[in-house]
Amino acid sequence: MPFSTLSRDQIQELLVEQSAKYVELQEAQLKLDLTRGKPSPEQLDLSNELLSLPGGDFKDAAGTDTRNYGGLTGLTGLREIFAEIMQVPVDQVICGDNASLALMHDTLVFSLLQGTVDSPKPWAKEDAIKFICPVPGYDRHFALCEEYGIEMLPVALNDDGPDMEAVREFVNDPAVKGMWLVPTYGNPSGSVISEAIAAELAAMETAAPDFRIMWDNAYAVHHLTEQQTKTADILGLCAASGHPNRPMIYASTSKITFAGSGIPFMGGSADNIAWFLKHLAKRTIGPDKVNQLRHLRYLQDVDGVHALMDKHRAILAPKFSKVVEILESRLGGHDVATWTDPKGGYFVSLDTSDGLASRVVKLAKDAGIAMTPAGAAFPYGDDPRDRNIRIAPSFPGMAELEQAIDGLATCVLVAAAEQALAN
Amino acid sequence: MPFSTLSRDQIQELLVEQSAKYVELQEAQLKLDLTRGKPSPEQLDLSNELLSLPGGDFKDAAGTDTRNYGGLTGLTGLREIFAEIMQVPVDQVICGDNASLALMHDTLVFSLLQGTVDSPKPWAKEDAIKFICPVPGYDRHFALCEEYGIEMLPVALNDDGPDMEAVREFVNDPAVKGMWLVPTYGNPSGSVISEAIAAELAAMETAAPDFRIMWDNAYAVHHLTEQQTKTADILGLCAASGHPNRPMIYASTSKITFAGSGIPFMGGSADNIAWFLKHLAKRTIGPDKVNQLRHLRYLQDVDGVHALMDKHRAILAPKFSKVVEILESRLGGHDVATWTDPKGGYFVSLDTSDGLASRVVKLAKDAGIAMTPAGAAFPYGDDPRDRNIRIAPSFPGMAELEQAIDGLATCVLVAAAEQALAN
Repeated sequence: MPFSTLSRDQIQELLVEQSAKYVELQEAQLKLDLTRGKPSPEQLDLSNELLSLPGGDFKDAAGTDTRNYGGLTGLTGLREIFAEIMQVPVDQVICGDNASLALMHDTLVFSLLQGTVDSPKPWAKEDAIKFICPVPGYDRHFALCEEYGIEMLPVALNDDGPDMEAVREFVNDPAVKGMWLVPTYGNPSGSVISEAIAAELAAMETAAPDFRIMWDNAYAVHHLTEQQTKTADILGLCAASGHPNRPMIYASTSKITFAGSGIPFMGGSADNIAWFLKHLAKRTIGPDKVNQLRHLRYLQDVDGVHALMDKHRAILAPKFSKVVEILESRLGGHDVATWTDPKGGYFVSLDTSDGLASRVVKLAKDAGIAMTPAGAAFPYGDDPRDRNIRIAPSFPGMAELEQAIDGLATCVLVAAAEQALAN
Repeated sequence: MPFSTLSRDQIQELLVEQSAKYVELQEAQLKLDLTRGKPSPEQLDLSNELLSLPGGDFKDAAGTDTRNYGGLTGLTGLREIFAEIMQVPVDQVICGDNASLALMHDTLVFSLLQGTVDSPKPWAKEDAIKFICPVPGYDRHFALCEEYGIEMLPVALNDDGPDMEAVREFVNDPAVKGMWLVPTYGNPSGSVISEAIAAELAAMETAAPDFRIMWDNAYAVHHLTEQQTKTADILGLCAASGHPNRPMIYASTSKITFAGSGIPFMGGSADNIAWFLKHLAKRTIGPDKVNQLRHLRYLQDVDGVHALMDKHRAILAPKFSKVVEILESRLGGHDVATWTDPKGGYFVSLDTSDGLASRVVKLAKDAGIAMTPAGAAFPYGDDPRDRNIRIAPSFPGMAELEQAIDGLATCVLVAAAEQALAN
């Protein structure tokens, strides 16, 4: 029953009942962690072949000795695979080391200290730099902005993309130099930027001549259903609209093969890639090509990537279903929370009634269930409605996950009842 | 015979003779490359075991699943090995990805955009930033300064370290925020910073409170003789002098295992390492721990590193001997060039008579022998005496190396004779 239809006594009764459950939860002395989108050991096992690759043959198809210096762009064979996934010509895709977050970081650093190809001066020399941040969004994007003093402007992220009215308003300010987007299966909302919104983002006039869309396609092939959502072709759309240098496109194998030992990719206009490589060349003589060869030998081609992702899906989809099933069974009909049922990606986004999220996370923590801090998906950690909680179901085993989500639901009901009684 | 004792006719005769050799050289249509300090395939073969490591066991001694995210400091076991080599407590050593150059780059970037732990403000907010650059030095250090607008102040590098009178003069300027040093087997001179000079560098008063010594110990264990030169303990010396945060210490396995697929290390005071990690945490969730485990399994311990370096020495030492032997036999006694006979590292540094280096490099290039551009070992590529040429003997096979050095000697003699006749 919706809380609004319950009497004060009924709510009191529910609080007593849920508080009893909560005490049991505490007594169970759980130690569960739903904070980060980490692959589970079972998922990592899928790629254990990598642990003894490339083996004796250390040359790629072009005859490059991957053990030695050089090759700043990364191995062509691997770039070819991700060029197709990223919808970027292979000459405009590079692959690097370790993490796409690092490539995003370096893009910001080069823009701050050198300016982009379209910048009148380095961003660090501007009085202020601002980025549009669709919310809820990825906390590490926001941490990068905070680190480098880039002011963040939150806009609502709808199911089909950011609130374009707010975006169009913001880009009238020449200090607004960019925006973050996870186009497919957004973190944490699971939303997918529609073709129409992507086209608008590509075409809109911006006061800054060097406005950049940081298009972090982290979950490009990370489907949770049979539906293989296709990401909008932001590079093509921007080029067609006369803004070829607007998008900076990122992808990664961190959640395809090994997290942290995978390969990140970056794509964009020929000018943007040349710009990035020019500055990157000062930082390194070349990437870890042996790891790139290792990945090329293992993944082989685009079909190889999709086949591997199917195996991930077989592990992940039941966990996501279980989360949604428990939330539905425990919270459904109470009108104290809504949650996403994503078609891909790594998160379920839970919105409680306003003002409950911090309390829920605190209750969960005290019962041994670690959640990402409330507000983490918002710039400066500030969720103005204090309602969003990011659930990362990938890492725990099924039994632990069930315990954790059931416990979390208890915390939501306790907090909601407390709130209702306090009013 | 020294050129100074030769008659004009004798020099003319020598020019004719050497020009004939040069024509032969051109006719041989060589394609030799002495530009970069790249390990040879034979050296890389020493570490081919890495190509199928770590194998099935992906956990380190602490039970860390190296395939997953996290562990920003890098694997403890590997840090222990290099802590000993770098003479830094293990808690103050971190290991990262790909290249120590990248760690140096990031140190500069964090200093520019955030300031060091001792900086009144970010370096980028200062009117000017300057670095002392002992010359000849490593061109990639200088390229980093140039990239980020750090003015370079050359000082002479003697056999035991930089000209301290010049250094002391420069550090009176508060804009002088740092200096580059390759303490052991300097690139390209092979010079080793003496204990006494290191102590002076540690103790000297600097106008900048945040003066940094970028102590790039790239060749810490890269001996070419039985003499295992020990690097001065810069961290201990600086701490003892009340400047604990002055040194930033770097090392790398790039020339121990695989170039570009190795592991870089950074050491320093506890405050400096905490500072670096705080900023690094925004760039990445953690390094490629599988590659670190791979290296740990392969190298095992400090003795393992030294044993491997002995094998490198067996390959490299004869090449260096050959270079010195040919230079001695072709140029000895002519008084047109001097060269180093390094006890370690990757380079022979050749100094011609003033004003000859560019011409020699041009002649070599036209005969199919690629040398690093004259002046490369100087800030802004400007060797004021136009005399220094860096020779990198590691990559070519012995026969090619002989051809190249013999050809280079011919070019030196041709250029010297031309110069003598032009006067």
